[in-house]
Formats: sequence, C-alpha cells, structure tokens
Amino acid sequence: MRIERDCVGELEIKEDALFGINTARAVHNFPISNELVNPLLITSMIEVKKAAAMTNHISGALEGAKAKAIVVACDTLLNEDYRQDAFVVPAFQGGAGTSVNMNVNEVIANLANKQSGSQKVHPNDDVNLAQSTNDTFPTAGKVALLKMLPKVQAKVLDLIDVLDKKAEEFSDVIKLGRTQLQDAVPTTFGNSFRAYASLFKRDYQRLESAKENLSFVNLGGTAIGTGLNADDIYQRNVVDKLSSITRIPLKSAENLIDATQNCDVFVEFSGVLKTLAVNLSKFSNDLRLLSSGPQAGIAELRLPAKQAGSSIMPGKINPVIPEVVNQVAFQVVGNDLAITMAAEGGQLELNAFEPLIFRNLLQNESYLENVITTLVENCVAGIEVNQEICREEVERSVVLATALTPVLGYQVTTKVVKQALKEKCTIKEIILSENLMEENEFDNLMTSSNLLHKVKNKDYSFAK
Amino acid sequence: MRIERDCVGELEIKEDALFGINTARAVHNFPISNELVNPLLITSMIEVKKAAAMTNHISGALEGAKAKAIVVACDTLLNEDYRQDAFVVPAFQGGAGTSVNMNVNEVIANLANKQSGSQKVHPNDDVNLAQSTNDTFPTAGKVALLKMLPKVQAKVLDLIDVLDKKAEEFSDVIKLGRTQLQDAVPTTFGNSFRAYASLFKRDYQRLESAKENLSFVNLGGTAIGTGLNADDIYQRNVVDKLSSITRIPLKSAENLIDATQNCDVFVEFSGVLKTLAVNLSKFSNDLRLLSSGPQAGIAELRLPAKQAGSSIMPGKINPVIPEVVNQVAFQVVGNDLAITMAAEGGQLELNAFEPLIFRNLLQNESYLENVITTLVENCVAGIEVNQEICREEVERSVVLATALTPVLGYQVTTKVVKQALKEKCTIKEIILSENLMEENEFDNLMTSSNLLHKVKNKDYSFAK
Amino acid sequence: MRIERDCVGELEIKEDALFGINTARAVHNFPISNELVNPLLITSMIEVKKAAAMTNHISGALEGAKAKAIVVACDTLLNEDYRQDAFVVPAFQGGAGTSVNMNVNEVIANLANKQSGSQKVHPNDDVNLAQSTNDTFPTAGKVALLKMLPKVQAKVLDLIDVLDKKAEEFSDVIKLGRTQLQDAVPTTFGNSFRAYASLFKRDYQRLESAKENLSFVNLGGTAIGTGLNADDIYQRNVVDKLSSITRIPLKSAENLIDATQNCDVFVEFSGVLKTLAVNLSKFSNDLRLLSSGPQAGIAELRLPAKQAGSSIMPGKINPVIPEVVNQVAFQVVGNDLAITMAAEGGQLELNAFEPLIFRNLLQNESYLENVITTLVENCVAGIEVNQEICREEVERSVVLATALTPVLGYQVTTKVVKQALKEKCTIKEIILSENLMEENEFDNLMTSSNLLHKVKNKDYSFAK
Amino acid sequence: MRIERDCVGELEIKEDALFGINTARAVHNFPISNELVNPLLITSMIEVKKAAAMTNHISGALEGAKAKAIVVACDTLLNEDYRQDAFVVPAFQGGAGTSVNMNVNEVIANLANKQSGSQKVHPNDDVNLAQSTNDTFPTAGKVALLKMLPKVQAKVLDLIDVLDKKAEEFSDVIKLGRTQLQDAVPTTFGNSFRAYASLFKRDYQRLESAKENLSFVNLGGTAIGTGLNADDIYQRNVVDKLSSITRIPLKSAENLIDATQNCDVFVEFSGVLKTLAVNLSKFSNDLRLLSSGPQAGIAELRLPAKQAGSSIMPGKINPVIPEVVNQVAFQVVGNDLAITMAAEGGQLELNAFEPLIFRNLLQNESYLENVITTLVENCVAGIEVNQEICREEVERSVVLATALTPVLGYQVTTKVVKQALKEKCTIKEIILSENLMEENEFDNLMTSSNLLHKVKNKDYSFAK
Repeated sequence: MRIERDCVGELEIKEDALFGINTARAVHNFPISNELVNPLLITSMIEVKKAAAMTNHISGALEGAKAKAIVVACDTLLNEDYRQDAFVVPAFQGGAGTSVNMNVNEVIANLANKQSGSQKVHPNDDVNLAQSTNDTFPTAGKVALLKMLPKVQAKVLDLIDVLDKKAEEFSDVIKLGRTQLQDAVPTTFGNSFRAYASLFKRDYQRLESAKENLSFVNLGGTAIGTGLNADDIYQRNVVDKLSSITRIPLKSAENLIDATQNCDVFVEFSGVLKTLAVNLSKFSNDLRLLSSGPQAGIAELRLPAKQAGSSIMPGKINPVIPEVVNQVAFQVVGNDLAITMAAEGGQLELNAFEPLIFRNLLQNESYLENVITTLVENCVAGIEVNQEICREEVERSVVLATALTPVLGYQVTTKVVKQALKEKCTIKEIILSENLMEENEFDNLMTSSNLLHKVKNKDYSFAK
Repeated sequence: MRIERDCVGELEIKEDALFGINTARAVHNFPISNELVNPLLITSMIEVKKAAAMTNHISGALEGAKAKAIVVACDTLLNEDYRQDAFVVPAFQGGAGTSVNMNVNEVIANLANKQSGSQKVHPNDDVNLAQSTNDTFPTAGKVALLKMLPKVQAKVLDLIDVLDKKAEEFSDVIKLGRTQLQDAVPTTFGNSFRAYASLFKRDYQRLESAKENLSFVNLGGTAIGTGLNADDIYQRNVVDKLSSITRIPLKSAENLIDATQNCDVFVEFSGVLKTLAVNLSKFSNDLRLLSSGPQAGIAELRLPAKQAGSSIMPGKINPVIPEVVNQVAFQVVGNDLAITMAAEGGQLELNAFEPLIFRNLLQNESYLENVITTLVENCVAGIEVNQEICREEVERSVVLATALTPVLGYQVTTKVVKQALKEKCTIKEIILSENLMEENEFDNLMTSSNLLHKVKNKDYSFAK
Repeated sequence: MRIERDCVGELEIKEDALFGINTARAVHNFPISNELVNPLLITSMIEVKKAAAMTNHISGALEGAKAKAIVVACDTLLNEDYRQDAFVVPAFQGGAGTSVNMNVNEVIANLANKQSGSQKVHPNDDVNLAQSTNDTFPTAGKVALLKMLPKVQAKVLDLIDVLDKKAEEFSDVIKLGRTQLQDAVPTTFGNSFRAYASLFKRDYQRLESAKENLSFVNLGGTAIGTGLNADDIYQRNVVDKLSSITRIPLKSAENLIDATQNCDVFVEFSGVLKTLAVNLSKFSNDLRLLSSGPQAGIAELRLPAKQAGSSIMPGKINPVIPEVVNQVAFQVVGNDLAITMAAEGGQLELNAFEPLIFRNLLQNESYLENVITTLVENCVAGIEVNQEICREEVERSVVLATALTPVLGYQVTTKVVKQALKEKCTIKEIILSENLMEENEFDNLMTSSNLLHKVKNKDYSFAK
Repeated sequence: MRIERDCVGELEIKEDALFGINTARAVHNFPISNELVNPLLITSMIEVKKAAAMTNHISGALEGAKAKAIVVACDTLLNEDYRQDAFVVPAFQGGAGTSVNMNVNEVIANLANKQSGSQKVHPNDDVNLAQSTNDTFPTAGKVALLKMLPKVQAKVLDLIDVLDKKAEEFSDVIKLGRTQLQDAVPTTFGNSFRAYASLFKRDYQRLESAKENLSFVNLGGTAIGTGLNADDIYQRNVVDKLSSITRIPLKSAENLIDATQNCDVFVEFSGVLKTLAVNLSKFSNDLRLLSSGPQAGIAELRLPAKQAGSSIMPGKINPVIPEVVNQVAFQVVGNDLAITMAAEGGQLELNAFEPLIFRNLLQNESYLENVITTLVENCVAGIEVNQEICREEVERSVVLATALTPVLGYQVTTKVVKQALKEKCTIKEIILSENLMEENEFDNLMTSSNLLHKVKNKDYSFAK
C-alpha cells in the first residue's frame, strides 16, 4: 500500500494501482452498481489528454520530456490492455465527471512516470494542464458519441437494405390494407416494406444531421468557458489536434461558456435516438400483428422461428426478436427522459449531471446498434409471406367497394357494403343483383391496376 | 330539427346547424372535456378542401358549379365568423381525425348548398372528392404546425435580442462563476447573457431545420397512400395548389404510404420543442437562483417586480415569470411524452392517434410562443444587476487562486486556499506571509484581463 | 375604472369588477392560454375562506360583523353565478398559487363589502387572516381532488359492473387464448371479461387507498408551516370546520412544515391515476385487436357501431371509443410526467409549481371520469361476440395438443404439432395415424372441462 | 460439443455446459448488451422450481426419484457457485421470460441428472411440470422484488434516523425560511430536518403498503391462468410451499387469468419507487442549495468533504453525494417510464415485456438501496450547520415584519418593508422612527417564541 494525500486527507492505495486517490475516493463514494464508465468514453478522454499534451508542448507550457512521457503513456493505454484494473470509476457518479477526468489523469501520470522512470509528471499540473473536467469531459463525451454514431447508422442502412430487398421480393403480393385495425383498401407487401424502408431512411438522415451540433466542443474553455489558465496558442490548436488524433471532424464552439453549461445538444440528439426507437417499436408491433397466428391470427407474415416459444405449449413459436426490439425501444425512451431531466437540472456555469447524460446516450446508441443487428439478421432477412391468405382476404373483402364510389356515390356504396356483410356475399353479387352497374364496368374498377393505383404510385412516389 | 342518416342509423340535427350527422355523433361519442379542435387546424382543413375542389375541377372530376360553390363556401369560412357553432368536434377524439374531416366536409357542403341555393354538393362525394381523412387530416396538421412555427421563432428571436442587449449592458459586470453551485472562477454578466443568447440561437436554428420534414405532405394518397380514387392530374397538382393557398411551401412526400402511416416527423418536431422547453426551464432556474434573496440569497440579479408575492408576507416579491416558464416547460415535456406514446402506438397503414399528436404539438407551439412573450416583456427586459454584491464576491473569493496554479502548482495552491478559508483571510495575505510569490507577480495574475481571459475569449468566441 | 395600489404600483381596474389588483396583475403576467383555474379548485378555496372566517371569529381574531360578511359572501359565491367574470386567473401561473388565493380574497372582500354596504373587509387582513397561500392553496387543492375522486370511482364501478355482466353473458363462449399474439390454450370470453373486471377492481381499491394521504392538510401552517400569525384556537379548529363545510373528512398533517413543502402525495396519487390510465389503454388495445376485421382480422368481438368510420371507405366502422381511451390514457401519462417534474423541482420551504400539479391532477381525474363514461356506455355495454369464429378457431387449433403433454411428453407433442401444421390436418388425425394414443383417451383430454380447467378455476379464482 | 434439438433444429452446445439449447438460442438471439438477468430473479426461479417439484410429488404427478433429484439440484444451485457460467441469458430478451425459465429448467435438469447419475429428468416434462413461463416467471419476479424491498426500507429507516438525529442536533438553530427561493419567515434547522424525516416516513409506509399487491402470485395458472395441466392438489398447495421456501408470505391471486396478463401491480410499485426517487432528488437539491458557496452562496450547511472537487480549481469541494442521488433519481424516473410503456403494451392473455419490467424494477430497488446508503453515510451523517450565517440572516431580515401584520395590517407593513429595504436599515428602525409601534410591543412580536410559533408547533405537529 502507498499513501496519497488530497485536500480531504490521506488514503491508502494499492501499491501497484495505476489510479490514485481521486479515483479511490470515487469508488468509495459511488457504490450504486457495478457498472463502470463506458470504455469508449475513457478512450476518448485519453485522446483528449494526448491532444492537450501535444498542444501544450507546442505552446511552450509543457516541457518536452513530460509531453513525450504523457503521449507515450496515452498511446500505451490506447493500444494495450492496461485498462481493466486502471479505469474503475463507477458509471453513476457525482462531481460532473471530475472522477473520470482525475482517474484518467492519474493513470496517465503514473504510467508516464513508470515508463520514463522519473516521478515528474503530475496528474493535475501536467496531464490536466490548461484543462478542466468541465471542458475535457464533455469534449470526450461528444467524441465518444460521434465514434459510435456511424455504427448505428450502418445498422440502419442494413435495415433499409433488407427492407428494400423484401419490398422487391414481395412487390406483387397483393394484400388488404388496415387502418385502425379495420380492413381498408388493398395494397401490396411490396408497398409495405418499401414504406418501412422509406421511414428508416429518415432516421438515417436524422442521425447524419445530428453530427453537426455534436461536433462543436468546448475544449480550451477550462473551468467555465472563459479559458482561464489556457494559453492562446493552445486554445487555437487543441481542437484540431484532437480531430486529427480521433479522425473525427471537431470544431471549437463559438461560445465556450454556452458550450460548457448547456446540454441542449444532448437533449436534441437523444430525441433523434428516441425517434429511431419509436419507429423500430412501431415496425416491430406491425411484424407481431401481421405474423399473429399461426391459425387464429392475421398470419400474413411468417417470421423466422428462432427458438421454442413456450415451456408448456409444444411447437409454439413466438416473435421474440420484435419483442426484444420493443423492450429496447421502451428503455431508450426511458433513458431519454432521464437525459431530459438531467439537462433541465443544470445550473449556472455547469451541468453537474453530464455523467448520466453520457452514460445514457452511449447506452442508447449501443442498444440500438445491437438490437437492429438482431432484428435484421434474425428476423427481417428471413421473413416470408403467406400469399394465399393475403389473396383470399382481398378477394372476399367488401372494402374493395371503395373503388365504386366515384361511380355510385358514397351513400349507395355504403348500402352495398352493409348488405354484402349482412348477407355474407360478395359486393359483385349485390351490384349485379341490384342492377347498379354493368359487370364489365364493375370488373374494370376491380383490376389490381385500378385498385392499387400501382403504376402511378410507383412512378410518383418511389422513384428517387 | 332535421333528420340525417348514416351507416349507423338516423339522428336529429338542429335545423340550422351547418354541421351534420357525423359531427353530431362525434360530439356524443367524445365528451372528454370542453376543449375543441384547435381553430388553426380547422382553418388548415378548409384550405385543404379549397385546394382539392380547385384541383378536382382542373382534372375534370368535379363540375364547375360544385367546385365554385365549394370554393366560395371555403372562402366564407376562412374570412368570416360562421365558425364558432359550426366546428364543434372535441379535441380528444377517436377515429383518426375522421370527425374533424367530416365536420369540415359537412359544414362546407351545407354552406355551399345554402349559398348556391341548390342541394347538390355532397360532403363525401364532392367536398371530400379524391380525399380521405388519412391524407387531408395530417396534411392540414402539418400546415397548421408550419403556420404557427414562425411565431414561435419570432419570440425566440425576441428573446435572443433582449439577451444580447442585456449582455451588452452588463458586459463589464465582473461576477463569480459557479459550478455545481460552488464558487468557481470569475466571469461577467456579459458573458452569462451572451451564453444564454448563444443557447437560444441553436433553438432558433432547430426550429428552422424542423420545417423541412414537416413540409412533406401525403395529400393525394387518399386512404392508405395508394391514392385510390384520386386522379393523376389531381395527385400531381393538389399540393402545389395548397402551397399557393396557404403560402406555405409544401412538397408531396416521396412515399405516400410511409407518409400516411408514420408519425416519426412529429416525434422529431416534438423533440425540438421539448429541447426549447428544457432550455427555457434551465434559464429560468438560473434567473430564480441568481435573484434569490433579497437579503439571504445570491441576490446578484433583480427581476422586475410584477405582483405582490405573498398574501401573508408583506413586500415579498417572487420570480413569478420564471416560475410560469418552468411549469409550461414541464407541460411541454409531458405533452411530448404523450406524443411519443401516440406515435409508437400507430399500427399498420395508419396512426389512429393523430388527433392527440396535433392537439399536443399545436398546444406546445402556442404555449411556448406565449410564455416566451411574457418572459421577454415581463422579466428579461427589466432585469437589473446588483454590481456591488457581484464585485464583493469576486474580491473576497479564494477561487481566484486558480490563476496561481500555473506558477505554484495544484498542491501548493490547494493549501493556500484551505488556509485562507480556515483563517478567513485573503489568498493574497497567505501568499505574501508565506513568501510564495512577489506581490507584483501576484497582482499581475489577478488582473481582470488575466482572470477573465477576456480579450481572447471575446475575439475568439463571440464574433460571428 | 377604479385605481388600486399594491407594492408594485397602481393599476386601473374595471369599476364593477369583483376582483382587484392582484388578480389583474396575474391576468397580465400569465397570458399562456385561455384556460382558467379549475372551477372546483376555486370552489374549494372559497370553502377554505369560509372555514377560516368562522374559526377566526371563534378565536376572537375576527370581529363578528366582518366574519358574517365574509361568510355570507362565500355562501353567495358557492351558490350563485357571480363567478364567471370574477375568477379569471389563468391555469398556468407563477407564484405558487398566490394569484388564485388573492383572486378569491379580493372577490370575497369586495362582495362582502358590497353586500354589507361597508368597506371594512380587507382581502389580506380579514379574508386571508391567519392564512397564507402556502396553506390555503394546497388544502383547497386536496379538497378539490377528494371531491372529484368518488366520481372517478363511480365510473370505475360502472365499468366493473358492465364487465361482470358481459362475463356472465359470455361465460360459455369458448375461444382461443393468445400469448405474445400467438395462439395459446383455450379460454372463454367469460374468463376474459371477468379478468378485466378483476383488474379494474384493483384500480378502484387504489383510488380508495389514495384518499388517506390526500386527506392530511396543512391549513393552519400559514407561510411555511410554522403557523406564524395563526392563533392556537384557530389552528386546532380550522381543519374540522373545513371538514364539516366540505363534508370531506380532513385531518391536520402531523408535520405542517413537511406538508407545506413536499408534493410526494401528489406524485403518489398521480401514479395511481396513471396506473388506471395504463389499464384502460391495455383493455382498449385488446378490444381493438379482438374486433379487428370485419373480414380480415381476428373479429371475435363486435363493438357497437358509433359513427361512420371513413370519409372515403363506405360502410367502414372503426373502434373510435377505445381509440379515444388510448389517447386520453397517453395524455394522463404525459400529465403525470409534468407532475413528477414539478414535484421534483420544489425547493426548500415550498413547491412553487403546485398550480401545475393541481391543474394536471384535476384534469386527469376529469378526463378519466369522462372517458370511462363513454367507454362503458358507448362501447362495452354493447359488445357482442362472434361465437362461430371463436368456436372454429378452437376446434382447428393445434395448441390444444398442450393438453396431451402429460401423457406424450413435450418432445413428442412438439412433433405432432409441427406435423399437423405442415400437413394442414388436425392433431387428432396425427395422433391416431401415428398410434400415439387411443381415440378414447384423446377425446377425454379434449373435453372443455379438461381444456378449460373450468370448474376448478371458477371455484378457485372467481368466487369471492 | 454435444448436439441438442428443439422445434427449430439442432445446435452444438459446449460439452460441459449445464444449460441447453433454449439457453444457447437466447444468447444468440439477444446480443443487446453484456447485462445478464438479475441473479436474484434466477434465485427466485430456482425456488419456484423447488416448490413445484415438491408439490408435484405430493400430488402424485412427479415420481419420488425425480422430485428428489430436482430438489437436490435446486438446493445445490441455491447454496453453491455453479451459477456464473450456467445462467447466461441476457437481461434484454424477447419471449416473455421463456428464456429465463428454460435456462433454469435446463440447468436444474442437467444438474439433477449429473448428480443422480441418470438421464431421466427432463427440463419441460419434469422440472417445468404443471408450470409455464407465464406463471413461474412473474411469480419469481414478485418474489425477487419482495426480497429486495426490505433492504430498501432498511435504508429509508437509516435515512429517517440520521435526519431525526440532525433535527435534534440543530433544533435550536434559527434560520430564515425560503419560499420560491425568496426570503420568508424564520424557522429552525431542527424543523427542516424533522420535515425531511417526516417526508421519508411516508416513503417507508408506501413501500410497506406496496407489499400487499405484490404478494399475490399466479403460480398454478400455467399458460394463461386457466391452469391447464396443473393438478388440483398442486394448485392448492404450491404457493404455500413457495412461501415456506422463500420465507415470503405469498398468496394465490384470486383471478389467475387477470394475474397472468396484467402488469398494473408493477406500474403501481414502480410509482412508489419513483415517488421515493423524486423525494430524494428534492432533498438533494435542497442540500446542494443550502451548502452553496463556500463564500458566494447560501452556505448555511456544510456537507462533508468527500473528494477534491475540481481538477483545475484547487481546494474546491463539490456536493458529489447529492449529485449522484439526483442522477440516480432521474434514472429511476426514466426506468419507470419504460415500465409504464411495457405495461401498456401488454396484449390479450400475456404481457410479453415482463423481462424489461422486472429488470427495471429490480434495478430501481437496487439503485435506491445503494444510493441511500451513500447519502446517509457519506453525506447526511456528517452535515454541519453554519450557525453564525443563519443567525445573521434572520436578524437582518425584513421578512420578520410579517409578525407585525396582525397589529399594523398588510398595507402599512408592506410600506415598512419597502422602506427598510430601500434605506438599508432594519424594520425596527423604521417602526420606531415612524412611531408605528412601541419598542416594547415590537420586541414582544420579535421573540423567537412568537416568530417560530415554536412550542405550539412542536406540541401540535411533531409529537406522535
């Protein structure tokens, strides 16, 4: 054991621990769960420290030997596996991220000193030079979010691809539409899947647009955005340096004070992820509805069987993949609410609740990435259509009478529909027996080309 | 009384009522509250009907006399005050907006017939020709949202303006920053108000960006987006006609089936309004904190006295305007949740819960417009600063020692701070008595220019 | 116009207005919407004022003439229609209810003076004597909630009644159960409706239990619960007086300071209303699912036709009543969130956001009362069952094979089920052709008595 | 590797794995995160299996050798550490808990066969005999919740205790109250902490009351609550058996069908936990406010210093414990929303989203238990009061004038207050210079006994 001191007092630290007293205090103070800070956030913090050290050396604030030792330590940590027992700060933490920042400062300083064989590098004076938790932590948070974002987008693209393929595959499968769960005018499963693809294209675009606001960072603002203790040269260069290290295009926020205290950008981004979650949930609800059965449900779709559905009912197959999508979606919405409350709770020059905000945003990104993966691979890719049921439903449906209203008018058609339902016969039979239309004219209105308005709609709506 | 019939049966309607049986049934079915459908939504529906009639006439589907009668009736309704007893459908309603659509169809048909002295115009066959609730209602909803949006934006601009003015007015008022409610390094109230202005500029921009997705409408898609019963000429022209009537630039959605069934665009827009609400709430929290007192609080700001604060404590003045902002913000967040659940609950070819979605979005727009108005006029414009308190706080604060760390290091400075707090003396006294620094060097670090990092920050962050 | 003065300055008030300057300022300060404070809350405030005047007279603090004038004025306001233009304070308001309290104080004082022909009664010194907004407002709020609560309960009882009747009516209608929307073992519609009744009985009980905590009021605590300016005799008697006036059993909170500043009781009660809303929504979802069709859905239930379902599809009937229930439920959940945030935002000796809390709780009570009314009358009472479909589904279902597992085991039965589905034959055919069981033994397992486990379950679960 | 088969096909399983094919499929299907099902839920499932085996043996459905093997395996699993690599099902999962149930069934069966040296025990036919996921999973969920609940209650009691102690310690510390963050009439820190204690006593009581509804389980209902395949003797005895094994008093739900499909009890319980979270957050907000400073804030309280507050500002101490409480509270509220949506999404005979509901409820219980621990130990127990500041604030406050209103009236007192604030003198100086009152009379109104209304309030409110 070694003894370390801070403004609170002394503490014993395990002899070989790379972390120091600030980290140990955090572990003691925040025993909420065994969930640690997201590794991607730690990685991004290390990259921030590396960028700072390099830029502080350029500005002359940090001597060469120290800068080099810090950079080497950062590279070690970025490339190797020192991390598991070094970065031990809990995900739930007070202190606005100070514990994360100091954990990283301490580990880098200790490793730098170990590797260089000197004891010169100080966690605050050197590793944290010209920095504060209040600029490094949200900057690293944004870097982490921006690193994970393309992964989510890639999965959304996979989903769009498989939906487009299914749309092509099912383009000729005529089926009944349903509005308010009641039989409506006909469509095709090609239409249905193309509409889902169209929906998720907007999600992709929203994720893309979200990058802009996330890319403005407050690094260089130090404690409250005034940049106290940060050199001009440092301020002008550190963000570019970080961009080149992370290969993520970052920009310095126009107003560093605003960027330090306000979390609106996270609420906005959370709203985008929430929208994606809501869409995935709606889509999953539809899949579950359309595959209900197998005998006493709608049964138009068959989802791939992925596991035995019941411990008691033999042969039962359940829509387990859409079900897990729903649940993840609910959790994403719940996490969004926690983010909203955390953002609202910020006070004056800082939001103390950023640890929760980053925890939840990174979790939501990761949940969505993973759940779309299983949705695509274990469900959508293998969906099959029950063409027979679909066709039968259309053929016997009285809703087709809608196509007669331009000729017969709404009121007369209503009577036809009611009579057909009551007498359990087809609308054609009513039309002919009541002499409302010639058979020829009726049949022309009932062509799929007229009913589906197909060519026009295809030309009109779906061609990009 | 007159008797009307529909597929359900007969109903007595007041002789002179412009509405008909569909409307009467809605009033009977949905007695949830006395809140009616938002008038702006009704207006937009009438504009949709006018556009449809004109386009149906061009396509040849609607004869001239009827088209003219419908257009004249629409213009009457848009310009006069027939409306109060004509549009009586409750805000909370089942049926996916059918009651709104039929209320409008019935009133237009009855008025057209009344004005033209004939009985030819039918609510479904003529006023609703080539339309469905499912395309007219969400289209009108989007038009209404887009009409109200610039009003919200104008208020956000007013807020930015007044904040910029206050920033200018207070640009030299040095004050202590606070992070996590604990004393932090100094700033100015100029910085503070400029940061708020910067925050709300992003809100303005988000509102502006939200217009794009809202402007894609599904008019022409009829029941489920396939466009059944809508003529090609109509489909190609009706959206442009509606744009020119409403003077709102609208575009036909690329995929009408998607646009008919998915409400993601509303979740997205609600997220933007929620973000604005959260920012207003954070700002109001800050105002309430900074004006706490008058004697036993922070008391740096004086909000305008707007009303006696207490029925029992004489002379008490409360921050009533920020308080109403907080509450409106909470309601906007609550309404957003209801919208989220409504969007998630959509099924297959339609979302039956659009009436709630439009009700809440229009309410949120309106609430925000109005609450910003009172915030600007009755609060922010009259805010004054208590310079004396601000200066005293800075002068006695031990946090200024932060500026010494580049010279003394973090650990030595920590001791200085603790000693100063303990002995209730200034850090300068400690520094000099302990011979840690020359007085001259100390004083140089304590200039406001160094402490505020002012020039650099101003050049760097605030110049657009 | 008359001129009134307060600590802010002077203001012109309409000559004959019963309200005064505090009210006028509130109207000016809070132009959020045209929604006024809930009349029931105003009524309860008047009752509080009456109780206070009577008790202040007993304690000797208020002279007889004034007390009488106040009581007469209160009675007038409680019985007549002075109110529409007297109580004009907006629902959304800052000031923690001070505007409501002063509106009521002013109207009572003015009316008392008008009726008694003197000018002696002062809104603060007399009507508000020994009171503060901070004890009268939440007390009145609780009284209002407790007045409306039995109305909600009565509707829940109506719902339970009609569900029990339907359960009786459908007790022999065998149908297939569905878990995860997939066919499951059989049940009856009697079981289904009895289960709904059982669910809503818990809601009734939760509403009943909620009364206890709501009945503790802080009247007598004045500004912050210390009871400053309230006489001992007054403190000991005023709550009983209010109980007898309102005929609601109220108790003085044990700790008036706690009761003045904390809103947990409202969060708790809101949670109870939210639970009811969630249950109504789940029930409505089930009704919409089970009545889907009429031809291409589950179609086991027929909901009463309440209005034409579509402006374009003739004869379409939609489940409009369950749909409005869903939407009200979403709004109740959204309002609950706003209440949660408002409660969390309370600070120190008071929660400034009680106006929003009472607005939303009273709205939720009212919405629920009204929506259950239409649900019972316009939907559940008229539900019919399609017995034929139900029976056919059970008869052809392979899930009945579950009853064979005690004999054949899970694995063998699984094969039977898969084979039956694949070959589109019955499980009986497979069983006999594969010689897995004697026909007799099979038939015994397939009796409804065994499948439904009926008698036992009835005895066991449903007999109270 | 060994090969297992199910209705989907074949799969390779690691030779020595205690779990089987159903578990392996779940791991493959639900790769959402590395979070596994809560161990407490697994433990409770094992107890359910043990109770079922014992009861099935009594009823004669399960032969002695198998029953014994199952019970021995359960005991092994309950007592030893087989578990880590045996129970590997992800927390986020579709299938309504089937994967959890089958994981437990498989592990018990394999272990039973291993221990007994036979291969007779079958996961479905024996371990799951007379059971379904749909009754065992929610039953085990309730058992787990009820096991953890007393731990939360114990922490709430600890909190109440330490608050009561602080109330005693600070009973004579006079301080200013604050309503709406503005100075209000005086109180004591004894009052303040006693009020917090009073608040959390209600939370304790709510947790206690929540047990009742949670204790009704649907074990014996099998697939949908009809009890198909469950013997009468089993049905009548299994819940008692489970009670005695878990030492938790459980009762059989009156209506098993209701209890199988409805999740209202979880929404209700989640509301109770949410209320506790909201209260903890409000309390933490107060602590952060009252300890703001040290120099430029309210600074009435000193929270224990737990770690260095800033990486850049030396000597800064932040309220890190209340901050982590706030964040946990926000997450509990977010998790509650996910639970609400999951409960609302249940359909017909089952709620497929129970895995999320139990995950979130158990997480919320655990978060709250742990965060209260650190709040009590690392914060509240060490809180100190800055008596000097408190006394000074009261002495100079103009709000004391409130005590003069019974003599001077509201309007005159208002003028006194305004004048005192304007002229920066005391109210006493104004009163005497304006000859409004005798000094003697004034002083009598200003005694702490009158201002605090102390004795009365203590007698009245705090004595149980």
